[in-house]
Amino acid sequence: MTTSVASDPTGLHRVLDDVAVLPQAAARLDTRRELWPDEVRVRVERLNLDAASFRQLERKHDGDGDAVRAEVLGIVAARGKMQNPETGSGGMLVGTVEAVGEESPLGLRVGDRVATLVSLTLTPLVIEDDLARWDGRSEQVPCDGYAVLFGRSIAAVLPDDLAPELSLAVMDVCGAPALTARVVRQYAATRRPTVAVIGGAGKSGSLSLAAARDAGADRLLGVVPHEQEAERLRGAGLADAVVVADARDPIALRDAVTAAGGPADITVVCVDVPGCEGGAILATAEGGTVIFFSMATSFPAAALGAEGLAADVTMLVGNGYVPGHAAYALELLRANDGVRRLFEERL
Amino acid sequence: MTTSVASDPTGLHRVLDDVAVLPQAAARLDTRRELWPDEVRVRVERLNLDAASFRQLERKHDGDGDAVRAEVLGIVAARGKMQNPETGSGGMLVGTVEAVGEESPLGLRVGDRVATLVSLTLTPLVIEDDLARWDGRSEQVPCDGYAVLFGRSIAAVLPDDLAPELSLAVMDVCGAPALTARVVRQYAATRRPTVAVIGGAGKSGSLSLAAARDAGADRLLGVVPHEQEAERLRGAGLADAVVVADARDPIALRDAVTAAGGPADITVVCVDVPGCEGGAILATAEGGTVIFFSMATSFPAAALGAEGLAADVTMLVGNGYVPGHAAYALELLRANDGVRRLFEERL
Repeated sequence: MTTSVASDPTGLHRVLDDVAVLPQAAARLDTRRELWPDEVRVRVERLNLDAASFRQLERKHDGDGDAVRAEVLGIVAARGKMQNPETGSGGMLVGTVEAVGEESPLGLRVGDRVATLVSLTLTPLVIEDDLARWDGRSEQVPCDGYAVLFGRSIAAVLPDDLAPELSLAVMDVCGAPALTARVVRQYAATRRPTVAVIGGAGKSGSLSLAAARDAGADRLLGVVPHEQEAERLRGAGLADAVVVADARDPIALRDAVTAAGGPADITVVCVDVPGCEGGAILATAEGGTVIFFSMATSFPAAALGAEGLAADVTMLVGNGYVPGHAAYALELLRANDGVRRLFEERL
Repeated sequence: MTTSVASDPTGLHRVLDDVAVLPQAAARLDTRRELWPDEVRVRVERLNLDAASFRQLERKHDGDGDAVRAEVLGIVAARGKMQNPETGSGGMLVGTVEAVGEESPLGLRVGDRVATLVSLTLTPLVIEDDLARWDGRSEQVPCDGYAVLFGRSIAAVLPDDLAPELSLAVMDVCGAPALTARVVRQYAATRRPTVAVIGGAGKSGSLSLAAARDAGADRLLGVVPHEQEAERLRGAGLADAVVVADARDPIALRDAVTAAGGPADITVVCVDVPGCEGGAILATAEGGTVIFFSMATSFPAAALGAEGLAADVTMLVGNGYVPGHAAYALELLRANDGVRRLFEERL
């Protein structure tokens, strides 16, 4: 094997499919150890599977951890990356930089302990320990192996003042608070908005509530599926009102949010279950914005749902990348005991 | 059967599923003829199947029109609505109002000739002529039967000065020009944007180009898949540059748009083929906006694609409803000979 093909910052040179697709859309990636000049190789310590992906695997195998582990190993061996074929999603990883190509623009040095902020769905990955230390029952996967970063990938050096598991969990969802803050700021320039976060007690949800407050939101509504989560969220003090509702039931969600001071100017969907599009649209005021962060979001359900309801709402695909997103999310965690407690309970 | 259940403007009262979902997400709708007080019944003349849906059926049955017709009849009989189970999409219909409930807020009268501007995916529909006049080879389906509109549905009375087929084709895609114009106007307040429309020679594409011009865009790029379409689009005079590129090849699309004066500040995706997310993102400038109108758009591919490319772009789900969208699209067609010619060629 040679690396005589020129590299592309998107990683296109590692796509093994017959048609030209980006690594994220590829069926299979080239996982060779040797690096192109703009690449970085990372010794993997831990994978953090995307929540929607892990839940799907858990459901499929009825919680049988060995079967879940076998399927993850099978996917990575077949595709050269971790991408759940059902959910299309991946996750992220933590590791230590072991080699840096001479033309890499990422600014990393050998020995840096990093988290990758691009999805596992486009990251060449080789597992070398059969995931022997993982019981298949948690999204956090101890792992020995290596991964490759491209010229346009993003990795963040882990901060010294936080446990690596905590930093990783924060970075995994750091796109949500950054984009939420940006949208809230756009509204706040004219009028402080009411913001509803569906799944407000979760990781991306609690950070999004903290970000909305930080960016100038007026009233904050946290929506959770049951009383236990409601107590958690109340204890964290992140929302002005905590609402218990099944987000898959559009009428129940609309009515619950309205009763708590809605409809929302901005609704942020942070729950990894399918079927929340209609409720999110109905919980949002005319002229408002829905931000979908859940990988379980269906594009046609959102587009046709809004049309079918004659709802004049702006709907955003939750882009996981906003410049400065990791640093901002870590700042929110450091500044908010409530957020920190929710995260630590979930580790 | 009775209508003793109260109606909901969303049509919830006609959902037959065991769980509470909106009509668009429902497996099956109640198609009874008798109306709730806020409903309207329309005698159907013609269905206009969504392009992505029709193509999928055509491919699946290798262009066998009888098989396509049989499948459409089967779907409508089983679900009480036309919703392609593969693409999730539907289409729209033209007909004449035959009954108006006393509490209907839609402002329609018996005898009005209307097009429905909400999707067939949420419209109760009964076909009464076995689609005997349709050969299964076109999206335009002559049909006798009836459909029901809810309190929150939208229907537009067909204008007198245009052929009904032409009005229908325009209204079918009228969300795209309206939302494109709105986004272009937001940019134009500070700087006139460069706009690229992928699928610029198509119906929603040509209207989106005209709308972008009308709303104050600077440079307009029309992207088409081959030379024949390029000639059509040049003839219509809607774009400053016409680019031939395969939108599924992200690198080719990026390079072609860049060479023609891109990257674009706003990229509008109007082609009904899967796999265009990466190219659209790469063809867009940092800080720019991608509007996805294609029902073939994959939510995870868009979200993870942008993250994987570290692309700071705003991605919008193309909401088919914007107030005044039908009137605006018809105006654009009347004012633009190029748009009108492209539409008439495709009827």
